[in-house]
Amino acid sequence: MEGRGEKAEAKKGKIMKKHSELSKFFYPESIAIVGVSPEPSNLGKTIVQNCLTFGYQGEILSVGLRGGVVFGQRIHSSLLEIDRQVDLAVILTPAKTIPGILEQCGQKGIKWVVIESAGFSEMGEQGKPLERACLEISRKHGIRFIGPNGVGVTNLEKGLALPFWPLRHDLSLGPVSILAQSGGVGVSYLSFLAEENIGINKFVSMGNKLDVDENDLLEYLIEDKGTRIILLYLEGFTDGKRFMKIAARSTKPILVHKSNRFKTSSQIAHSHTAALFADDMLVDQALEQVGCLRVNTMNDALDCVKSLTLPPLKGRRLAVVSRSGGHAVIAADACAYYGFSLARFPQEILKKIESKLRAHVIRLQNPLDLGDLFELEFYEQIIEGLLSQDGVDGVLLGHGYRRGFEEASSRQLIKKVADLTRRYQKPVALVVFAEAVEIDYLKRNVNIPVYTAPENAMRAFYLSYKWASRKPPRTKRLYTKGIKRQKAKKILLQAEKKPYLSLKQSMDFLQRYGFSVPPHGIARSAEEAIRIWDGIASKVAIKINNPHFSHKTDAGAIMLNLNSKQEIISACKELTDVAGPDAEFLVQAMTDKGLECILGGKQDDVFGPVVIFGLGGIFVEAIRDVVYRVAPIDYNTAANMITKIRGKKILEGLRGKEPYDVDAIADLLVRLSEMLVDFPSIREIDINPVMVFPKGKGATAIDARVILEPESAPRDKR
Amino acid sequence: MEGRGEKAEAKKGKIMKKHSELSKFFYPESIAIVGVSPEPSNLGKTIVQNCLTFGYQGEILSVGLRGGVVFGQRIHSSLLEIDRQVDLAVILTPAKTIPGILEQCGQKGIKWVVIESAGFSEMGEQGKPLERACLEISRKHGIRFIGPNGVGVTNLEKGLALPFWPLRHDLSLGPVSILAQSGGVGVSYLSFLAEENIGINKFVSMGNKLDVDENDLLEYLIEDKGTRIILLYLEGFTDGKRFMKIAARSTKPILVHKSNRFKTSSQIAHSHTAALFADDMLVDQALEQVGCLRVNTMNDALDCVKSLTLPPLKGRRLAVVSRSGGHAVIAADACAYYGFSLARFPQEILKKIESKLRAHVIRLQNPLDLGDLFELEFYEQIIEGLLSQDGVDGVLLGHGYRRGFEEASSRQLIKKVADLTRRYQKPVALVVFAEAVEIDYLKRNVNIPVYTAPENAMRAFYLSYKWASRKPPRTKRLYTKGIKRQKAKKILLQAEKKPYLSLKQSMDFLQRYGFSVPPHGIARSAEEAIRIWDGIASKVAIKINNPHFSHKTDAGAIMLNLNSKQEIISACKELTDVAGPDAEFLVQAMTDKGLECILGGKQDDVFGPVVIFGLGGIFVEAIRDVVYRVAPIDYNTAANMITKIRGKKILEGLRGKEPYDVDAIADLLVRLSEMLVDFPSIREIDINPVMVFPKGKGATAIDARVILEPESAPRDKR
Repeated sequence: MEGRGEKAEAKKGKIMKKHSELSKFFYPESIAIVGVSPEPSNLGKTIVQNCLTFGYQGEILSVGLRGGVVFGQRIHSSLLEIDRQVDLAVILTPAKTIPGILEQCGQKGIKWVVIESAGFSEMGEQGKPLERACLEISRKHGIRFIGPNGVGVTNLEKGLALPFWPLRHDLSLGPVSILAQSGGVGVSYLSFLAEENIGINKFVSMGNKLDVDENDLLEYLIEDKGTRIILLYLEGFTDGKRFMKIAARSTKPILVHKSNRFKTSSQIAHSHTAALFADDMLVDQALEQVGCLRVNTMNDALDCVKSLTLPPLKGRRLAVVSRSGGHAVIAADACAYYGFSLARFPQEILKKIESKLRAHVIRLQNPLDLGDLFELEFYEQIIEGLLSQDGVDGVLLGHGYRRGFEEASSRQLIKKVADLTRRYQKPVALVVFAEAVEIDYLKRNVNIPVYTAPENAMRAFYLSYKWASRKPPRTKRLYTKGIKRQKAKKILLQAEKKPYLSLKQSMDFLQRYGFSVPPHGIARSAEEAIRIWDGIASKVAIKINNPHFSHKTDAGAIMLNLNSKQEIISACKELTDVAGPDAEFLVQAMTDKGLECILGGKQDDVFGPVVIFGLGGIFVEAIRDVVYRVAPIDYNTAANMITKIRGKKILEGLRGKEPYDVDAIADLLVRLSEMLVDFPSIREIDINPVMVFPKGKGATAIDARVILEPESAPRDKR
Repeated sequence: MEGRGEKAEAKKGKIMKKHSELSKFFYPESIAIVGVSPEPSNLGKTIVQNCLTFGYQGEILSVGLRGGVVFGQRIHSSLLEIDRQVDLAVILTPAKTIPGILEQCGQKGIKWVVIESAGFSEMGEQGKPLERACLEISRKHGIRFIGPNGVGVTNLEKGLALPFWPLRHDLSLGPVSILAQSGGVGVSYLSFLAEENIGINKFVSMGNKLDVDENDLLEYLIEDKGTRIILLYLEGFTDGKRFMKIAARSTKPILVHKSNRFKTSSQIAHSHTAALFADDMLVDQALEQVGCLRVNTMNDALDCVKSLTLPPLKGRRLAVVSRSGGHAVIAADACAYYGFSLARFPQEILKKIESKLRAHVIRLQNPLDLGDLFELEFYEQIIEGLLSQDGVDGVLLGHGYRRGFEEASSRQLIKKVADLTRRYQKPVALVVFAEAVEIDYLKRNVNIPVYTAPENAMRAFYLSYKWASRKPPRTKRLYTKGIKRQKAKKILLQAEKKPYLSLKQSMDFLQRYGFSVPPHGIARSAEEAIRIWDGIASKVAIKINNPHFSHKTDAGAIMLNLNSKQEIISACKELTDVAGPDAEFLVQAMTDKGLECILGGKQDDVFGPVVIFGLGGIFVEAIRDVVYRVAPIDYNTAANMITKIRGKKILEGLRGKEPYDVDAIADLLVRLSEMLVDFPSIREIDINPVMVFPKGKGATAIDARVILEPESAPRDKR
């Protein structure tokens, strides 16, 4: 299992090596741009121009078949014609020419390449052979490449700007790095950040992610000095499992804007539980699990980035101060909506404010309506008074004015507030109501993000708080107690080449992982069944030992509450009618009545092993009330997961009923998680129902279905 | 019952009268502004200034105790000093002076007054006596007034602009009228609309709504010629019932931004069902019911207003065309999210596009990525081609460019698109990615709303479609069949002064409204109970005939499935132990097992009679899966209401079970609605459970609780 036995030092070394491996993409000492011509419509020329605009600090070499001169520089007719070493090649020539040029890169010893040309797999199947050729050549020469079908790399630290369309000149250097699967969306983000006067560090348009993917780049950025905030625009995960590991390690906030949300999964579910997975909800919950901030619109992303440039919001107690009572009400609503509370204001502050009022026509409360207060210097004192209180974690200030009226004093106030937020290391969400041109002035001239609606500011606060209060996920594997992995493996081996385990094998397998299961035995005849019932000495259920009978009660493949020879004989007869003369029966003790839950899991194409939990029966059927987590999970994650179902009141005990044993459920979820990580050959598992008893009395798996990877020997990861 | 027997003509006359009654607030021929002085900080002077700025077409008279001159005009020392007739007085003097000034208005024959001063009930209880005085004086003199505590009335048609702070000069005349309970929020809306270059018609800051309220003004605006779109910012409804009636009548879209969403209700619930009402959800569902568009943020409101200025979106089939594949993906996501579909493009258009491509690096599909297409004139042809298709109801066009690069051609394109949307009377949501300064240019110079994110445009489309596809609600009362109102009334009279009906009375009451109830009788002894059981000739339940035993199974106040003398005798004994020696019992036939639902209702403080529906048992307990509607409802509304519960799959029949009789539920909901409208003295009613049987087999009320208005004789509305 990964991580076990590896030494931290070796790991660190590995990360550093990976880091330096990609650094030439961002810090090349020289670049060659292939596809440049002096033609007015030539796009390669724009790349040269962008680098000149942003003051690229290395040598720029242009390459183009027809030669000529651009920006006073000779265009080389081929890469091979260049007599110096080149760190990075940027290619923007027709798709079919790319393999040849990659070959030239190899000959020239260029190890880092950015391919911007389109015309590959994004156009459909016909683009695939070309992509395979690119991969082959690059691997042969040890080349790493970004793209194709993107606008390449931008690193403002180095003045590197490879997009083939002209970037805005007013991009400034700062803390935000962007990885985007769409060049257009990435450039929009650059533009939006420029409008907010928020600095950009690095930007990669990843294109088709044929070689270097989001995980490689994310791994680079979480170690990158200049990057403090990471914004990721994705249309699909290359390897969600690896993504989770990297994200979990990050000490920098990672905002994920993931689109393609409503594409239906190509995976076909073979079990009841697997059919309950909704891809986008899984993405949601997986990101939540590793502390990434998911944003669903560009506006949300920007608001969140803005609030992350403020000192962190470390608690839930806010003060709302506004010049308009209505805006204060709107802010208070948003405050409640996002689970924040309005702090109680200390008497001394209230007294101070009271002493300043003219007509005494405002109420001293939180939210505070400053309506009657026209001395803006006094606002500062209020904000400072609030920030200095231990009981206040952050402030929302709503301020409205017009150009030409209170313009100077308002700007002064806003600058002071920017100072105060830094001095007290608490965030102030500044919401300004003014003409767009004034808002624009502020964004360019004050050192604090400006919001134009209280709801947006509050939502940004919410995401910021979520980040500040996250607990780094523990993905370390913890459970070994009561797990007999080798014995479990033997059961999988018994399945031979069958794509599933029998019911008996499934139950035994669960038992090896520490699940409680009812006493049971296998019978091939009514006589054997009676003998087992005799041994169990209580009511039994008899089930067909073949997992193909899925909804067993519906199919008549299960008989319950049998407690006499006669009942067993006639049950076996009926079951034989359903399953044929060679059927095997599982004779299983009936358990006490408890709460029926569903536990399950699958190997997801994107995230690898995932576990699912839900309330059984009507709840899961009618409203799909289920929660997912990506394995491995620890006990706390499992316990938290259980609280996320909508019907959790049922677990807590409705109408004075005893609460159910959620601890036992959490324990089983961790065991299930271990199992799926240990054996990737388990494609789907469905434990339905798990009968959960009142607190302290545990939980028992009543029925289970294990679907295996077809044609695979039981793989385990050790 | 309202509306019945009234003649349409009389009604119309009444509306017209009301309309003209308020018109002087918007179209006064002369105004007197009370509280003006030449002091630099005087706010009354700003009102004069605003009117001068917007070219008010009547006479402005200033009044102020200390006299002097403003804007070349003498300030009168008192209203009474003015020798001419004045239509409208605007008062901005300290709160305590208002009653005296109102008295002067009365003497002077001024019938319309705007009070802008603060210091009334918004400051707490101490402001109430002053408000009472204002109301008394105004009623005495037949004065209508707006305020206090607001920024008054603005009517750009007349150049009237009464806010006491300086309005932006760039407000333009147009279709949007705003009613706002907060001056600050109202003015922000004016400002935001100005930024979008969307014209404003009228704006009222309603303040404390002491006399004229949102309903009066809404009634005015839905008849007002100049107003095409109404935007309402509310912190609370004055009379939700009246609001619903007015809104239902409106042929103009009404956007409602209602804050104060998370305030807890002051109403105390006396029954299980009443406790299930969540105020904000009720607001949501009530607005939905009458076709209002609820918006929860200022941004949403603006996006929606923008899309309402376009031709209406009449269907769900959209085309997405974008210069960036990423933005196209984001738009397609939003398209799916809001329930739209991507239209299939006809071959002829695809062929046309293909013929124009240079490198053939885009895929011909919807969403259409125009990446490779640089001839902007051809975009027009594509948009026109799409708009001309019957199968396309609207288009989202994403276009990105930079100032100085394609600026002229892009502006040209956008103007053409604005023409096309008008020519084809189909909406194009234009999403532009460009510098803020360019966006600003577009907003001021093109005649089509500009969005800056596809998600926002799509959400606006959604609201616009919702409006275009709404069915005007039918609030006409329809049901009389099987309802015996007079007999029902007698039961309420029997209750005398008790605040509730007995169980037997409740069941009888339901029966008068056409509910099916199980056969039953009242017993005062075991012998009587046995006699009734004999008559029923099947299993019976015995319940205590006193509604104070709420959750009856828990309290031991109900015994089920009794089918022998012995069982009945011992049941009566146990119930006597619970309820005392004088207890009466309801002996009721057991019904077949069906699906347990809850029906109920209450008289809501805001909306009047409301009905509720939910699935019984665990669903309603665990996840409060309920839906509300404001009564009266017709059958279609009831049927639609039932489909809105989350657990609706259960009603449809899970796992091949027969579907339940939702028609019967709808029928009962209408009867319940009739009942609550007929008898406002019924404060709460709880019919729990209603046993619903498979389709065609009806539904039966098993238990009910009716809580009456304390100390009230049964009022009915006829």
